[in-house]
Parts: sequence; C-alpha cells; structure tokens
Amino acid sequence: MNEKSRKDNDLGQLRIQIDEIDSQLVELLAKRAKCTKQVGAHKSKTGMPIYVPEREAELIAKRREQASSMGVSPVLVEDLLRRIMRESYQTQHVIYKKQSDDIKKVVVIGGEGALGRVFVDMFERSDYFVEVIEKNDWERAPEIFANAGLVLVAVPIKITEHVISQLKQLPDDCVLADITSVKHKPLNAMMAAHKGPVVGLHPMFGPDVSSLVKQVVVVCHGRHEEKYDWLLKQIKTWGAVLNESDAQAHDDAMAFIQVMRHFTTFVFGAHLAGENPDLEQLIKLSSPIYRLELNMVGRLFAQDPSLYAEIIFGNKDSVGLLHRFRDEFDKALNLLESGDKSGFIKQFLMIGSWFGPFAKQSLLESKKLLQKVDDDRHLG
Amino acid sequence: MNEKSRKDNDLGQLRIQIDEIDSQLVELLAKRAKCTKQVGAHKSKTGMPIYVPEREAELIAKRREQASSMGVSPVLVEDLLRRIMRESYQTQHVIYKKQSDDIKKVVVIGGEGALGRVFVDMFERSDYFVEVIEKNDWERAPEIFANAGLVLVAVPIKITEHVISQLKQLPDDCVLADITSVKHKPLNAMMAAHKGPVVGLHPMFGPDVSSLVKQVVVVCHGRHEEKYDWLLKQIKTWGAVLNESDAQAHDDAMAFIQVMRHFTTFVFGAHLAGENPDLEQLIKLSSPIYRLELNMVGRLFAQDPSLYAEIIFGNKDSVGLLHRFRDEFDKALNLLESGDKSGFIKQFLMIGSWFGPFAKQSLLESKKLLQKVDDDRHLG
Repeated sequence: MNEKSRKDNDLGQLRIQIDEIDSQLVELLAKRAKCTKQVGAHKSKTGMPIYVPEREAELIAKRREQASSMGVSPVLVEDLLRRIMRESYQTQHVIYKKQSDDIKKVVVIGGEGALGRVFVDMFERSDYFVEVIEKNDWERAPEIFANAGLVLVAVPIKITEHVISQLKQLPDDCVLADITSVKHKPLNAMMAAHKGPVVGLHPMFGPDVSSLVKQVVVVCHGRHEEKYDWLLKQIKTWGAVLNESDAQAHDDAMAFIQVMRHFTTFVFGAHLAGENPDLEQLIKLSSPIYRLELNMVGRLFAQDPSLYAEIIFGNKDSVGLLHRFRDEFDKALNLLESGDKSGFIKQFLMIGSWFGPFAKQSLLESKKLLQKVDDDRHLG
Repeated sequence: MNEKSRKDNDLGQLRIQIDEIDSQLVELLAKRAKCTKQVGAHKSKTGMPIYVPEREAELIAKRREQASSMGVSPVLVEDLLRRIMRESYQTQHVIYKKQSDDIKKVVVIGGEGALGRVFVDMFERSDYFVEVIEKNDWERAPEIFANAGLVLVAVPIKITEHVISQLKQLPDDCVLADITSVKHKPLNAMMAAHKGPVVGLHPMFGPDVSSLVKQVVVVCHGRHEEKYDWLLKQIKTWGAVLNESDAQAHDDAMAFIQVMRHFTTFVFGAHLAGENPDLEQLIKLSSPIYRLELNMVGRLFAQDPSLYAEIIFGNKDSVGLLHRFRDEFDKALNLLESGDKSGFIKQFLMIGSWFGPFAKQSLLESKKLLQKVDDDRHLG
C-alpha cells in the first residue's frame, strides 16, 4: 500500500469510528426520550410542573463538571443538554394535572383564533370541559355562560373592549380574564362589566410556540386574587413563567417592546424595498449579524399584516415615542453630516453607561446566537 | 410504602437513569473528540480543507435517517450534530498545510491590531515566516519588505490609503493585499502603488471568531490572479468561504450591511437611553424576539466606539441612504397619525412581495434562533 492510499485508509477508518459514535448518540437520545416520557406521565398524574428550574440547573451542573474532568468543553455539554431538554419539554407532556376540580366549564371567547386555540388546547389537555364561543354563537351566550367557571376573552384587540362590555350576565363566582396585548383598558372594561374575580393576562408568545415551557405570561391583577389562584397555578403547570405587572406600566413597556420594534422593522423593510438592492448579493456578502438582522426584518413580512396593523395602530400613546425616535435619528444624522466624530463617540459612551452591565451580557448572549447562525449555514 | 413515596421513588429512579444516560453522552463526546483530533492532524499533514461540506451533509443525512427510524426527531439530531461539529472545527486544527513553499515571508502591516493578529496567527500555524510591521518600525521598512512574498495591509480604515501609498518599493512578485472593510479606494490605491499582483479582501467577521470555518471572506480581484491563487487556497484551507465581488458593488452593499445597521442601532440605543424606561422591567416583560432585539442593540455599546465611528463616518455615500430611511420613517408615521390602516397593509404586502421567498425562509430560520434564546433562559 503506498503512502497516499494508507493515509486515505486512516481517514476512512476514523470516519467509520465517528459514524459509529454518532449512531450511539442517536440511540442514547432514543433511550433518554423513553425516560423523559415516563417522567412526563408521572408529572401529569401528580400535577408537578413540567419545568423545574432547580432540577435543570442541577442536571447541567453535574454534566459540566464531568465534562471538565474529561477534557470536554462544559459549554458544549450545556448547549447540547439545553437543546435536548427543549425537545423533551415539547414531547413529554400530553396531558396536564387539573388544578381546580370546582371549575365546571371554561369558555374561550374567540377560541377559534390562533392564540385562542392554544389556550383551548392546553385547557382540554388539563381535563377541563371547554366551550368556544365565536360571533355567530352569540345568541346562545346565556346558555353557554350559565355555569362557566372561567371566561377567557381571546378576540382581536380592536373589539376586545366591546366584547367585554357585553358580558354583563356572568355567574358571580366566574373568573373573567383576557389575553389582549394591551392591559389597561381591557382590565378596566372587565372590572366594569363583572362584579366577580377579574384578571388580565398577556401571553408574551405567538401561536406558533411548540410548548409553553419558559414562555412568559404577564399577569395584571384585577379583583379577588384568591378566586383565580387556580388559574395562575394551571398556567405554571404548563411550564410558563408568570410576571406580575401594573396594567399601565405594562402598556408603557409594550410601546417599546411591540410598537417601536414592529414599526421600525416595517420602516426598515420599506426602505430596503424602495432602495431595491440585489437581495441575493446582500445575503451573500452578509456577516452573521447582518444576516440575522435581515432575517428579523424579513420574518415580519411573512406574517399577517392586519395583526401588525392592529398592534401599531392600537397603541396611540406610541406616536409621541416614535416622533422622539425620529428626532434622535435626525440628531445622529447631524453628527454624521457635520463630521462630528468626537460628539458621536461621546454619546456612544453615554448610551453604553445607560445600558450598564446589560451591554456586556448582550455581547456574550448574542455571540452564542451568532455561532448558531454559523452552525446552520449550508454552504456548497 | 405509601402511594406518594412510591411515586417519588419512581421519579427518583427515572432521574437516576437520565443522569446515567447523560453521563454516557459526555463519554461519547470525549471519544468523538479524540477521533476528530486525529482527523485534524491528518488534514493538517495532507492540506485537506478543515471544512468539507459534502462530508458534513452526508454525516447529517445518515443520522437524520437513523433518528427517524428510531422515533427521534431528525431536527434535534441535526441541531446537536451541528453544534458538536462546530466544537470540533474549533479544536481539531492546530496547524494547517502550507499552500505555497515559494513564499519566503509574509508581512502583516498592523499585525498587532485585533483582526491583524488573527491573520498573523493563521499564517504562523500554516508554517509561514511572518513579520509584523507597526508604525514605529517604519524606518526598518526596506529591510522588512526586502524578500516579502505577501504584504497584507491590516491597519485602521482611516489610514489605509495613506499606508498603501507608502508601499512603492515592494519586490515585483510580492502579492499586495488588504483587509479593509471598504474595497474600492484601497484597491485603487494598491494598484497605483504596486506593479505586481494585487487583491482586496474583506473578512466578514470580527476578531472574536473562534475559528474561520464557514466565515465569509469577500475577494475583489486586482491584478495577476494566478500569482495570488495560493493565498486564496490558503484561506480556504482555514475553512473560510470566498465570495468574489466587484469592489464598488461590495461598497454599495456594505452601506446597507454595515452603515445602515450600525447607525440605526446607535439611534435605537440613543432613543432608549433618552426615554429612560426601566430596563429590568423591559427585559422581564420581553418576548423572545424583543429580548433578542435588545441584545442586538445592547451589544453595540459594549464595543469600541471609535471602531464604529470609523465605519459610519468612513462611508460618506451612506448619508443619502440614511436620509431616505428617515423619509420612509416619516411616511410611515404619517400613515399612523392619519389612521390609514389600509395604506399600511397595502405597503406591508408590497414589501412582502419584494422580499419574496426570503420572508418565509426568515421566519423559519429566526424561529430556530428564538428557540435557542428560550433554551438559554435561566429562570428562578
């Protein structure tokens, strides 16, 4: 055997070994999934929450330690375990423990909408009797609401208050809740329409989530907290994390979180389309961070325009915010046009100190993400 | 044993099994790393490129198939393998095959700068004799350049052309190249200063990359392509991907890719700092996408302001581009203030059709990323 073919042979042998190891890896994953399914079944029966932060942290810490002692990167092991755990969260739970046996019926108004459907599904998998009411069913409303223990309003933002104002005849003990993306006005409307327990919810996720694990739900308390405690427990059982907020503070934050973000993304898309550069070329020449940026802009326009119109046009307080953004833009443009580099650097440093430790933390977190963008590159 | 403690016991047993499986997983990773290190050594000797797209695709396809047949998610398996392969790309190569034995010396001007150092390191690990020249060494320049086979200009953008204009005395056959983030003017300057082979390079990554695998390097051809063919091969040996571009087209694209992105991010930060919302609260209430957005803004301000000042102030063509962005912003603000929802939706759809299939693709790609943001959440 000559030198070259001996070397090719070595490489071939090594690749066979690697394939063998990867095959064992897949087998391990199959075995692990069997175990986590049993854990899931156990949790469903006992009502234990699907996501237990302490167990997750402990599990990761043990493997990181083992990795270090074996010369394997602990960061690699943590990344892999987090990805594996995500999968098991998504697949292990078919049913959830019901947190209140007193609730005869859950009514979801607008339960055929995208996000409404997620809640209908979760309640049904938690063994509640669920009824959906849509606009065509309104004549049957008295009958449907008659023995409801929870009425959840899941209708488009523009009709939320109107729909709530129609709910004058709910049973006294019935919990009235909504999942609208603004909270101040709907919460007031619910308090006015119903004398019983009231709570405002804002699920910070879209209908395309594959599980509720680690998803955030904002809770704005209304009235008789003790009477809807079971509902909050139920949502936690699904794996979600609750964050309490004052309704007005929530809406102020959303002006940043939703309106600013969607509006500027819209403008970015409008500008790109207007400039009409060669998109292929732009993608080809992109650094990971710009590829990610382009993705974040592009994804908006693959979605329902009326949904975004509702969010942007539905929060009129944000007009002032957007005007001030435009003013900042002009100020920065002035710095650029007058060649005032030192003014730019001075402001840059001021903004950096406003962000504080979050800036550094963002650099680290986004680095991990950008590496993921690289991992997924398919290059020929 | 009562019912409850029996159940607790079941759960305990399952967790022991899961820990056992995870421990085997770490052992497999250690074994795999041993194999890939040998593959790396083999590639270093033979000069095979570190990244072979076909082998990667084949390896993934085989494991996806196995996964499907065993009821394991193929997407999960692909994600894990890509993450594992990234690690091995980063660790397996210590040295690289030298692609040209004729090159007596590589000189990196500004080789003590952050990105310059990456190239010095890569050339040294490829067995080239590398000399660095910084501004204080300039009197020794004739001696340093005397038998150089490659001179790589890696100085800050604002002095690139000036430095190039000083390079009148290079050996005829020496390759002159630069790694500046604009290409048109530096390439012209190099063509004027040197009669021999010339090529412009733009590495589309920062100095913090942990390997060059899958990173993009833009190539703008200058003169005598056949004489710097070895250099392009060398860069490919490091795992990078080359994209050829016309210098002016490159600069036009960079106005979007770098200037627009950094400038609007700067304004976003300025606006946030000016509005001064409670950052903690904002993060707490954030959906995954806004958390990512905040990270992308925050990360800018953890970096060197003068670097960004150079990029933004160094590309004066972008002023017009930024003005037109501001105009788009005003137009959108008008739609909002006049309540013209249907005008908004109409434009939204037009932009969507400009993006074409990229929009849908972005939605899919970013969904994977947002899941990664969720995976990494540490919640108490």
